[in-house]
Amino acid sequence: MDKFIRYRQLVPQILLEYSEQKPSHGNIEVDETILDKERDHYQIVNVGWECQNWVNSCIIHIDIKCSKIWLLFNT
Amino acid sequence: MDKFIRYRQLVPQILLEYSEQKPSHGNIEVDETILDKERDHYQIVNVGWECQNWVNSCIIHIDIKCSKIWLLFNT
Repeated sequence: MDKFIRYRQLVPQILLEYSEQKPSHGNIEVDETILDKERDHYQIVNVGWECQNWVNSCIIHIDIKCSKIWLLFNT
Repeated sequence: MDKFIRYRQLVPQILLEYSEQKPSHGNIEVDETILDKERDHYQIVNVGWECQNWVNSCIIHIDIKCSKIWLLFNT
C-alpha cells in the first residue's frame, strides 16, 4: 500500500484510540480529537475545566506532508 | 435554512478567510486552519519559527454543538 495512504489511515486511527483514554491529570472534561483529513492536520486538544481554570491545550499535533509524518507539537 | 447547517457553512468559511491573512506578529510561517467537519471542531493554529523559537499556538478554537457556536478559545 502507498505510504501516504497508509499514513492517512494510521494517524487518525492512533489519535482516536489515544483520545478514548481519560486524561490522567486533573479533571479535564474532554480529550477532543480534531481530524482534518482534507488538509492532513491532526490534533488532540484537552478542553474543559481543571479546578476553576479553563483549559484549551494541544497535547499532540501531527501533519502529513510530502508523504511524511510531521510531529509539530507534543507535550 | 436550518441554523445548524448555516453554522457549519459559515464557521469554516470565516476561518479560512481569516487564515489567508499573514500573521501580524513575528515571522510565524503558517496560520494553519484545521477543519474537522465530521466532529464540528474548528481551529486556527500558528505554526512555525518565530526568531529561534518553535511556535505551535492555537489562536481560535470553535465547536458547533447543539446548534450553537461554542467559542472555546481565542487569543
